[in-house]
Amino acid sequence: MERTKFTLSEEEMPTSWYNILADLPEPLSPALHPATKEPIKPEDLAPLFPRALIEQEMSTERYIEIPEEIQEVYRLWRPTTIYRARRLEKALDTPAKIYYKYEGSSPAGSHKPNTAVAQAYYNKKEGIKRITTETGAGQWGSALAFAGACFGLEIKVYMVKVSYLQKPYRRVMMETWGAKCIPSPSAETQAGREMLAKDPDCPGSLGLAISEAVEEAVSREDTHYSLGSVLNHVLLHQTIIGLEAKKVMEQIGEYPDILIGCVGGGSNFAGLFLPFIPDKLSGLKPDLRIINVEPTSCPTLTRGPYTYDYGDVAGLTPLLKMYTLGHGFIPPPVHAGGLRYHGMAPIICHLLNLGLVEARAVNQLETFEAGVTFARNEGIISAPETDHAIRVTIEEALKCRETGEAKTILLAHSGHGHMDMAAYEAYFAGKLENYAYPQEKIDESLKELPKV
Amino acid sequence: MERTKFTLSEEEMPTSWYNILADLPEPLSPALHPATKEPIKPEDLAPLFPRALIEQEMSTERYIEIPEEIQEVYRLWRPTTIYRARRLEKALDTPAKIYYKYEGSSPAGSHKPNTAVAQAYYNKKEGIKRITTETGAGQWGSALAFAGACFGLEIKVYMVKVSYLQKPYRRVMMETWGAKCIPSPSAETQAGREMLAKDPDCPGSLGLAISEAVEEAVSREDTHYSLGSVLNHVLLHQTIIGLEAKKVMEQIGEYPDILIGCVGGGSNFAGLFLPFIPDKLSGLKPDLRIINVEPTSCPTLTRGPYTYDYGDVAGLTPLLKMYTLGHGFIPPPVHAGGLRYHGMAPIICHLLNLGLVEARAVNQLETFEAGVTFARNEGIISAPETDHAIRVTIEEALKCRETGEAKTILLAHSGHGHMDMAAYEAYFAGKLENYAYPQEKIDESLKELPKV
Repeated sequence: MERTKFTLSEEEMPTSWYNILADLPEPLSPALHPATKEPIKPEDLAPLFPRALIEQEMSTERYIEIPEEIQEVYRLWRPTTIYRARRLEKALDTPAKIYYKYEGSSPAGSHKPNTAVAQAYYNKKEGIKRITTETGAGQWGSALAFAGACFGLEIKVYMVKVSYLQKPYRRVMMETWGAKCIPSPSAETQAGREMLAKDPDCPGSLGLAISEAVEEAVSREDTHYSLGSVLNHVLLHQTIIGLEAKKVMEQIGEYPDILIGCVGGGSNFAGLFLPFIPDKLSGLKPDLRIINVEPTSCPTLTRGPYTYDYGDVAGLTPLLKMYTLGHGFIPPPVHAGGLRYHGMAPIICHLLNLGLVEARAVNQLETFEAGVTFARNEGIISAPETDHAIRVTIEEALKCRETGEAKTILLAHSGHGHMDMAAYEAYFAGKLENYAYPQEKIDESLKELPKV
Repeated sequence: MERTKFTLSEEEMPTSWYNILADLPEPLSPALHPATKEPIKPEDLAPLFPRALIEQEMSTERYIEIPEEIQEVYRLWRPTTIYRARRLEKALDTPAKIYYKYEGSSPAGSHKPNTAVAQAYYNKKEGIKRITTETGAGQWGSALAFAGACFGLEIKVYMVKVSYLQKPYRRVMMETWGAKCIPSPSAETQAGREMLAKDPDCPGSLGLAISEAVEEAVSREDTHYSLGSVLNHVLLHQTIIGLEAKKVMEQIGEYPDILIGCVGGGSNFAGLFLPFIPDKLSGLKPDLRIINVEPTSCPTLTRGPYTYDYGDVAGLTPLLKMYTLGHGFIPPPVHAGGLRYHGMAPIICHLLNLGLVEARAVNQLETFEAGVTFARNEGIISAPETDHAIRVTIEEALKCRETGEAKTILLAHSGHGHMDMAAYEAYFAGKLENYAYPQEKIDESLKELPKV
């Protein structure tokens, strides 16, 4: 019998997150205050985040303990399983061994709860009663809604109005977990009211939703704000994925040659690959390849410059050193909603700049084709975001068929596509197309980069 | 650390199904030919089912080996996990221990693939190229679509037109796995064309969809028909749930006092409880309670007579001895689409008649309330069908709080509700109501019972 699934026992679940800041060959460029352009200080962030998370954002401790209360919630679905994609391998007739670490078994269906639960816990512990956040497609909002239910926190999600209207089921998920989800722009904030006054039919944007969520958090003592990707502490929480994966691969006597994941803000894939970086640095596995996959419609890593930019469209957040398409970049409405961010986690950008990881952009139609192949062989219908990583996994496996190399590939599978069937429907109906972002539009958007 | 999840290793996965027909204290009443009213013969079923399944339908062998090709597909998601609902227990402040066996981790999100995969395999093995079936809400159709992808079979699903139009995402799931899904009534069969001639706007019914699927299967040499519940061989394939559960409970030193599951056709819950029946019969666990939960809107077991009836609305299928509301019974449009069948698996009915299992009917609003409580504590958003079983689980756990008894409850959790968020939306919007079927309507429908 050939085993298909490999999972740690609950007793073996990692009890600390791994902090890459302890091991970077060069330190990360600091985040800058949007007004002063000076490195940001912990107190600058205090209106938004609990002290524990601000500490984690800046810590250089190698391991940070996961409190038992968080572990207890993690154990509802963690450790997650690594699958050997035997049926896919056979279908591709490849000598490559394809493994995937599946995060879709979480209640919210993706990796997002790994950080949502942690963020809810630390806020609760510091006496916060409410958390605001924004959501686009709804993946993050539902993860935080679930986390709020776990710790008895009130969660309020500003959901981009066009998504709110088009994707009611993500909202219903949030409500099932007890969260409040309202369309942005709303009448509940100054930013929202101003926009509605200008344009009552405004479809909203992620940037505006961020502004609303931040405004409400800053204006209330009992309320904080929460972000689902990009920041160091978010990536930190996600490293449980990679720590579990390393342990399992060790148990089965494998070490991956290639890690592949999709990146929007980058937290899922960084969560998988960061714990492998020390082995690459130490010379234990110097030739490990780490492929960040992004859409050609939002080619942050493959076509953006590496420079300071705002995290949000409105320019309210700290300046982060990252590859960016410009904070004014308006991505086309491709369906992989989670991959439409103009920037990228500074940690990933830093590693790309150092040459420790690589990046590749793929076209939308090819990603759905790959997702369908995956579903018909492995069963799981994947999120459109994940299909990007699946596409490159198949490409690499087919290269192995050419060369005859039996490489070991580990795919970061970020979640299922159960809430994304409309995207598959559009694909089957021939309504989707490939879209490579025109260079002149990128150039235009980059004109707005802040001077530092 | 208190463990939350208990799962067998793949090596420990059962390699045989359990056949209750070997252990019944009295034999099951035979299925009767719809025309002759004589016990059905294997050859009567040959145009519809492969020989192996007809044999399984009538076999009295206690264990029937699971072919390795089926086990290989099962291993994509099996063995499934038993969860200890520690957070729910705490929320209910109950001394009861609540376990649930979760089938929602299958690719199609429910227990249905357990039999879909087996049925696809045996059909493939006997040279069949195509399988037709019907589906209401789409749970079964998507499971068979997945199974068809596993064995390279063409799957054609007649989906009740009103569901086809209202629930496009289930259809898209089927298409993702390569199946063809068309609305019933269709122009592709005599039965469909006749209905369309009479009423071009006919919304369809499960009965008509069965007629279409059967008609096509009978008319083509290379095509068979497949049924997702009720029949003995379907329940047989589902016993892998109970066999796994017994093994896990044994490993952790527990034996359930109460088994609880929802029943539509009954295959999910029978799959869990049948392997426990021998212990009840042998005196090892004589007081084990087995509670079949159905909706008050379709109260087959709690209010129907035990008699011979057709399995389908049109009266084309063999006559089965069962509790029934009459094959002409038209259930109200409650959202738990999987629990709207007028009859029930003959095996369950027989055991209820013998007093070996019990039945309870619950109201719709209470089931959603229970489902929300479950989601906010355990994370998982459950199918509306499953919420029925969750409701009774909570009731039994609260009884334990009254009496102080630390009973062990094992809940058959049949699947997630990701494709059912519209039902939760209607619940939150106050659009659902309780509906106890009026006795005079049941009496009316029972007038049409066939004479045997």
